[in-house]
Amino acid sequence: MTLKRKKISVIGAGFTGATAAFLAAQKELGDVVLVDIPEAENPTKGKALDMWEAAPVQGFDSYVKGTSNYEDTANSDVVIITAGVARKPGMSRDDLVQINQKVMKSVSSQIAKYSPNSTIIVLTNPVDAMTYTVYKETGFPKNRVIGQSGVLDTARFCAFVAEELNISVKDIRGFVLGGHGDTMVPLTRYSYAGGIPLEKLIAPERLEEIVQRTRVGGGEIVNLLGNGSAYYAPAAAIIEMAEAIIKDQKRVLPSIAYLEGEYGYDGIYLGVPTLLGADGVEKIFELDLTENEKAALDVSAQAVRDVMTVLE
Amino acid sequence: MTLKRKKISVIGAGFTGATAAFLAAQKELGDVVLVDIPEAENPTKGKALDMWEAAPVQGFDSYVKGTSNYEDTANSDVVIITAGVARKPGMSRDDLVQINQKVMKSVSSQIAKYSPNSTIIVLTNPVDAMTYTVYKETGFPKNRVIGQSGVLDTARFCAFVAEELNISVKDIRGFVLGGHGDTMVPLTRYSYAGGIPLEKLIAPERLEEIVQRTRVGGGEIVNLLGNGSAYYAPAAAIIEMAEAIIKDQKRVLPSIAYLEGEYGYDGIYLGVPTLLGADGVEKIFELDLTENEKAALDVSAQAVRDVMTVLE
Amino acid sequence: MTLKRKKISVIGAGFTGATAAFLAAQKELGDVVLVDIPEAENPTKGKALDMWEAAPVQGFDSYVKGTSNYEDTANSDVVIITAGVARKPGMSRDDLVQINQKVMKSVSSQIAKYSPNSTIIVLTNPVDAMTYTVYKETGFPKNRVIGQSGVLDTARFCAFVAEELNISVKDIRGFVLGGHGDTMVPLTRYSYAGGIPLEKLIAPERLEEIVQRTRVGGGEIVNLLGNGSAYYAPAAAIIEMAEAIIKDQKRVLPSIAYLEGEYGYDGIYLGVPTLLGADGVEKIFELDLTENEKAALDVSAQAVRDVMTVLE
Amino acid sequence: MTLKRKKISVIGAGFTGATAAFLAAQKELGDVVLVDIPEAENPTKGKALDMWEAAPVQGFDSYVKGTSNYEDTANSDVVIITAGVARKPGMSRDDLVQINQKVMKSVSSQIAKYSPNSTIIVLTNPVDAMTYTVYKETGFPKNRVIGQSGVLDTARFCAFVAEELNISVKDIRGFVLGGHGDTMVPLTRYSYAGGIPLEKLIAPERLEEIVQRTRVGGGEIVNLLGNGSAYYAPAAAIIEMAEAIIKDQKRVLPSIAYLEGEYGYDGIYLGVPTLLGADGVEKIFELDLTENEKAALDVSAQAVRDVMTVLE
Repeated sequence: MTLKRKKISVIGAGFTGATAAFLAAQKELGDVVLVDIPEAENPTKGKALDMWEAAPVQGFDSYVKGTSNYEDTANSDVVIITAGVARKPGMSRDDLVQINQKVMKSVSSQIAKYSPNSTIIVLTNPVDAMTYTVYKETGFPKNRVIGQSGVLDTARFCAFVAEELNISVKDIRGFVLGGHGDTMVPLTRYSYAGGIPLEKLIAPERLEEIVQRTRVGGGEIVNLLGNGSAYYAPAAAIIEMAEAIIKDQKRVLPSIAYLEGEYGYDGIYLGVPTLLGADGVEKIFELDLTENEKAALDVSAQAVRDVMTVLE
Repeated sequence: MTLKRKKISVIGAGFTGATAAFLAAQKELGDVVLVDIPEAENPTKGKALDMWEAAPVQGFDSYVKGTSNYEDTANSDVVIITAGVARKPGMSRDDLVQINQKVMKSVSSQIAKYSPNSTIIVLTNPVDAMTYTVYKETGFPKNRVIGQSGVLDTARFCAFVAEELNISVKDIRGFVLGGHGDTMVPLTRYSYAGGIPLEKLIAPERLEEIVQRTRVGGGEIVNLLGNGSAYYAPAAAIIEMAEAIIKDQKRVLPSIAYLEGEYGYDGIYLGVPTLLGADGVEKIFELDLTENEKAALDVSAQAVRDVMTVLE
Repeated sequence: MTLKRKKISVIGAGFTGATAAFLAAQKELGDVVLVDIPEAENPTKGKALDMWEAAPVQGFDSYVKGTSNYEDTANSDVVIITAGVARKPGMSRDDLVQINQKVMKSVSSQIAKYSPNSTIIVLTNPVDAMTYTVYKETGFPKNRVIGQSGVLDTARFCAFVAEELNISVKDIRGFVLGGHGDTMVPLTRYSYAGGIPLEKLIAPERLEEIVQRTRVGGGEIVNLLGNGSAYYAPAAAIIEMAEAIIKDQKRVLPSIAYLEGEYGYDGIYLGVPTLLGADGVEKIFELDLTENEKAALDVSAQAVRDVMTVLE
Repeated sequence: MTLKRKKISVIGAGFTGATAAFLAAQKELGDVVLVDIPEAENPTKGKALDMWEAAPVQGFDSYVKGTSNYEDTANSDVVIITAGVARKPGMSRDDLVQINQKVMKSVSSQIAKYSPNSTIIVLTNPVDAMTYTVYKETGFPKNRVIGQSGVLDTARFCAFVAEELNISVKDIRGFVLGGHGDTMVPLTRYSYAGGIPLEKLIAPERLEEIVQRTRVGGGEIVNLLGNGSAYYAPAAAIIEMAEAIIKDQKRVLPSIAYLEGEYGYDGIYLGVPTLLGADGVEKIFELDLTENEKAALDVSAQAVRDVMTVLE
């Protein structure tokens, strides 16, 4: 039967994972499996059941199942990894590496076992290094192991611009390269409102403030919440990537992709503009960069390498 | 300007309130204001900002604002009340009355002051008594003060039936009267799968099990989560009601409506089938009940009166 | 690659076929191929191109291709047949049989050749006999050759009821068996507004008027248009069936299905309640009928047999 | 009641008008009134009824009414004018002026009488001069009389680019100024795929071919159809504008707006980038143009003036 439903598994049933599962179900991307560790099995089942009970009202046909058993994820088309320790106030990104690497190893072996043909999207921080870990541990081809950061960074930037200009978010387009947050490399010259370059609409110093606010956008939410980190926008970001793959949309979205020479880097995962379709990362777009942009991207790449040295 | 955007305010930024705000924004019902007490202002702002940062990805134009200042809610079209203490494991519904009544009084005065023409939907438990409290405190006409319980109960019932029969939730229709949960009065003879009465598709004892599971559906989630209660399906339920009102949809949905003689009751809020449109509860449908159904509804009504005696 | 896009081919680029193609593209059910005879190749290409030029504005990713070459339909998941002579004012349904049977034979051989695993939905009139013809000519299993009539008849009935009661179409449910139009067998006792039986809301004689208007609903449009027949509602109906199959929704929808004993008939295509999913007609629901209903269905079945005698 | 449904009237029930009415209903922008002359009353009623009969299946609550009586349009929020003679193969745009001007005068007086607070969007060709006529005849403020051409031209350009690059239409952004078709002024330097300037992705001569195909995009469809002109993409374009206004979306869309000094022109309607919201054209964006672009825009403006001399 060629028309069977698609299947998306979300590993990690925290706020981001749960929200991602719900958004996937709303979009009817396929049936959804929400997975967490055995100790969290009941809350995971509770969240999934609560989502499924929303289905008759929201009108979606995706079944949502909570579980701690990876057998339930068998033959997933897309697997989203949100598992791991979340970033807390004051915690550096590097602090997360050791513990989350172990989580990635464990998760990767299960995915490789049960869904060997899946495409994996990683959200766990530090996301560049964690995506690399999953790539190595699963042995999947590079196009099927992808990290998320640029869609979220771009979304924050666009939200700030939309509010600044009082223009619909539908018409704002941002563009970032490089790492998540601090080492993000914004390309404001490729950012627009209704096709008009932002540099024509916003004064340079104000635009730089918006860029800077974007850079620390994750921290802004962490500080406001006091206890926890953002999950609505991160979940929306990862589901946009998943949708592009599942529906073979050929979207141009920033992804953390494995570079083998592109932009002059080799053997690292870094945020670059990609074409996302049924084959995962189907293409990496190489842009001409200014000297400043290249220098900033070098810093970003070095930061990724620095984290990678912490691995193992 | 007749075409200004609609405005929805959600009072209470807990999980249900926050999720309701997000679902309202997704549906572009209007701009959304999420309100909580001053002590929770920062987390409220954080949640709202996180939602707004999802807007560029999800493609919705509704702005989401977090606040503790009711001035920000001015001229809302619909106000949703989720504020109050949540039901915890082992806590009876009656335990909630005293504290939540105070919350309703405080919230009602703010709504009456800032949005005197709004329609209010109450979700706070015990919802029948809390809706009554808001009705009395605001002095709004009865059609503009409504409680939610039947949409959620029906959704749970339909989700269970859809899973039982492996039939799309789009084709399952349930029907409940009376109170929320324990005193819910299911009309299985008015419940269908694709128009076919469920009684033709499911054996009586199995159907009764599903009804019973629905009755304790809130508790099932509470027990699974261990710490907290359902919020996805409750938020979806309340937003379906809000959408019916804001878009003047003339939906037939179960509401907790103020009765003045209908079904033989007077002066209480009770779950009945209603027509929801721009004027709130535009009509109450009175159905012929069997003796058993009427007896069960009497029990439900008495339970509402019992809680009302606890008021003040 | 398991995630390739789905493909829907629509045979016949008249108003109904073109509108069906557009609705399928809007829903992003897959890429769409609109096919007509070589003499109509240019207009077919023109319509498809016009639809595709709407994609950037409507935001759908389905490509729409116009062609007269069946090679372009290769490996379709669903094929919709609207080809054939349309019903004109004064023309009886039987008049159409001979000419449309030839069209069905020609189309069937092409579908069997290029899309041997597809599911076919037939709209061409007289639809029962034409569906039978396609079933015989393709040699496909019965579950993968389906006719449309009940979804459209039900839609018309629901539209009339919604207007009569001023209730949202979202809450109206109708139910028909048997043939299209004149020999339609309405089950008003299984028809509801918000779950409430219509018989409680509409006086019997008025309900009968609505049923009668539904019976001649196709003719009402034909008479108003003066030159042509309905296409918006027919296209919407057929796309609802296609969506149920492509997305494996397990919808309960009336279909013209091949009966082998169900309802006491054998070897004919007749309108019955079915479960539509990835396997096409996955189940036929057998309902208890009253004597009157059974007698009416017998008339309907006899009408189908009468047309079938005209075949060959 | 502040929450009453919005109302959209579409004047002219030809293919474009009918399709626009259907798309507006699908989006639930409000109730829809489709109007044509008394001689076409029955077909207009037939099309509207057919659309309304699709509502239960497509799930939209907008009522669609066909009429020849302008009283039925009373208090419309947005009025769309598609009435007039359609462009036929070989017919120059100027040939249309005289006859369509008369139609605009007649329609304008009816709109001014029955919907004095509405915003009008004109699609009738030659659209610049016809929009001017409606502006003068209604006496409405300039922000509430708008013409459509750039959304359609841009849509065609984006569709061609999406196909050229095999990239999602969701990620293509084009930009045009000036008149419709022949005198269109494309700003390819403000046109992107996923934020990347098209000039980096498509060779100059190929990009020029795509621009040229866009310029004659209307004629391409006319030639293919043989008998009639495009209506899917034009209807989608006009409904995107109507949605921006009705939902106060603050979209940045090209509109034919009345210029009083902007871009150095005064007293003419010309295609420019605008902000569309509840007040109609809320802002005109003035861009720096290159000498070539300004020269091309001068040609476009002169073409508009040339047509205007034919008026009266």
